[in-house]
Amino acid sequence: MSLAEGVLRGEMRAAARLMREVDDRTPVAERELRLLYPHTGRARIIGITGNPGAGKSTVVDGMIGRLRADNKKVGVVCIDPTSPFSGGAILGDRIRMQRHATDPGVFIRSLATRGHLGGLSRSTSDIVAVLDAMGMDVVLVETVGVGQDEVEIVSLSHTAVVVTVPGMGDDIQAIKAGILEIADVLCINKADREGADRAERDLIAMLHLRAPVHDAPEVEIVRTIASTGTGITELLAAIDRHQGRAGDVMKTRARARARAQIVELVHERLLGDLAAAGLDQLAAAVAERTRDPYQAADELLASLPQRG
Amino acid sequence: MSLAEGVLRGEMRAAARLMREVDDRTPVAERELRLLYPHTGRARIIGITGNPGAGKSTVVDGMIGRLRADNKKVGVVCIDPTSPFSGGAILGDRIRMQRHATDPGVFIRSLATRGHLGGLSRSTSDIVAVLDAMGMDVVLVETVGVGQDEVEIVSLSHTAVVVTVPGMGDDIQAIKAGILEIADVLCINKADREGADRAERDLIAMLHLRAPVHDAPEVEIVRTIASTGTGITELLAAIDRHQGRAGDVMKTRARARARAQIVELVHERLLGDLAAAGLDQLAAAVAERTRDPYQAADELLASLPQRG
Repeated sequence: MSLAEGVLRGEMRAAARLMREVDDRTPVAERELRLLYPHTGRARIIGITGNPGAGKSTVVDGMIGRLRADNKKVGVVCIDPTSPFSGGAILGDRIRMQRHATDPGVFIRSLATRGHLGGLSRSTSDIVAVLDAMGMDVVLVETVGVGQDEVEIVSLSHTAVVVTVPGMGDDIQAIKAGILEIADVLCINKADREGADRAERDLIAMLHLRAPVHDAPEVEIVRTIASTGTGITELLAAIDRHQGRAGDVMKTRARARARAQIVELVHERLLGDLAAAGLDQLAAAVAERTRDPYQAADELLASLPQRG
Repeated sequence: MSLAEGVLRGEMRAAARLMREVDDRTPVAERELRLLYPHTGRARIIGITGNPGAGKSTVVDGMIGRLRADNKKVGVVCIDPTSPFSGGAILGDRIRMQRHATDPGVFIRSLATRGHLGGLSRSTSDIVAVLDAMGMDVVLVETVGVGQDEVEIVSLSHTAVVVTVPGMGDDIQAIKAGILEIADVLCINKADREGADRAERDLIAMLHLRAPVHDAPEVEIVRTIASTGTGITELLAAIDRHQGRAGDVMKTRARARARAQIVELVHERLLGDLAAAGLDQLAAAVAERTRDPYQAADELLASLPQRG
């Protein structure tokens, strides 16, 4: 039986093995993912990002518990910051979520952010595709970071949840500003802390500054105390309402997701060609200022082999 | 007089105008940057990243003051998190640094992180090139975020400084782990806070876990209280020592920088070709599952026009 067949039957072991192939970017991964692809598109993808220290993992943990109580199968992708040199995940799966590790209705996978030249969004798409194909009803994609790549990944989910907490410093406020515009649902976690009312007022004020770019439905703000489970049901209800209201947005995002995925694949496939066309020698020439980078890019493009 | 000529004479106004062209990615920007390129490579590039709330801007502000006292010209690039939709900078130049705004030996530029498909490292390279060509002795590149792109940018500077503070939460510890491996110099800011000794012990322990990938010289740990200026002289001295010890590393990084820049330019130039070759239609087909993304990427590559 192929890995894809095993995944389609919902076999955890086959899924885990395919994900390792995905990590290693093997030809097997690509072959099996292609077989799976027609069977994807059913899972609901919820992205979760927010300030470091906002308790995102605890919120995710609460969501898993709530969704399981409703008998939904839940896949989780945790995007961890990693060494750009060693390439290995540092966090591993979040500790708290491990209590779900023995539940056959839950599949948690950590994804290390890879070093140079991206690849994060491609890896995420591939892992989500496996979870989707194996029959997960909901896939939660949690990012630790607030970097461009991570924000992009969350922005392409069906519903993007941004988690924040009352009373953080200026620097963190700034980050909040950067990710606020992708929020479909805002979660004020640790809402029993002082300053929750003020945080909510601030968020409402900032929401009014958002550029009205996509015809987005209104953003709901939900308060949670994830450590005690308070507000998690309301958070999931707000996510449901968002998805109910946002039919066209879902379609646009599915296309944007596909577009990003194709572009990344094209770039990746070209990297080999660039190396063969003398990328390293040109980089040395640019570093020594005997060529400029624009010239080097044009030279490389001119010497790429025709693929068709 | 061309913009490039103005920049080479050190004219602030020409530099500011060229940077706006860079922001807008105009043909003028490319033409002028090509003229400038042979005159770059003299400035020392110091990257600064670290935990949100660690006081990076205050450290940078202190470094500017100290470098100015030594009569060095200082360029500063602040990388701000931004809306992936509106594309505009939210923070603007950091408030505190504004005291240097009237000093003709200082040039501070904010750089908004752009939305989808990257471009951050290219924009940073271009802005650094302008500052370098206009005669800045030192260019400080400060990032607010700890995302993949930002970490990559900092890792490619001559010296990467990672700023942290005593006593932060788990989530933030995790981020620290992710960026620690790029550190050439570690700065424990707010070192008068409780827990500075413990923070230093933790950092030393984590440094021992670093993968010994590049033949990096030893990482010095410097304590600062940037708000009072304490330790800034020592921090700059540690950076100097790093650059003294790290001759070969500098060369390798200059090539890696050039390589990343060329690859980004190639990708950018190809995006237009991809659109012409039917990217959007293929994305729609992938979203509807009538094609898989791998197939779509191969089709696009096959239909790219020969450039040579």
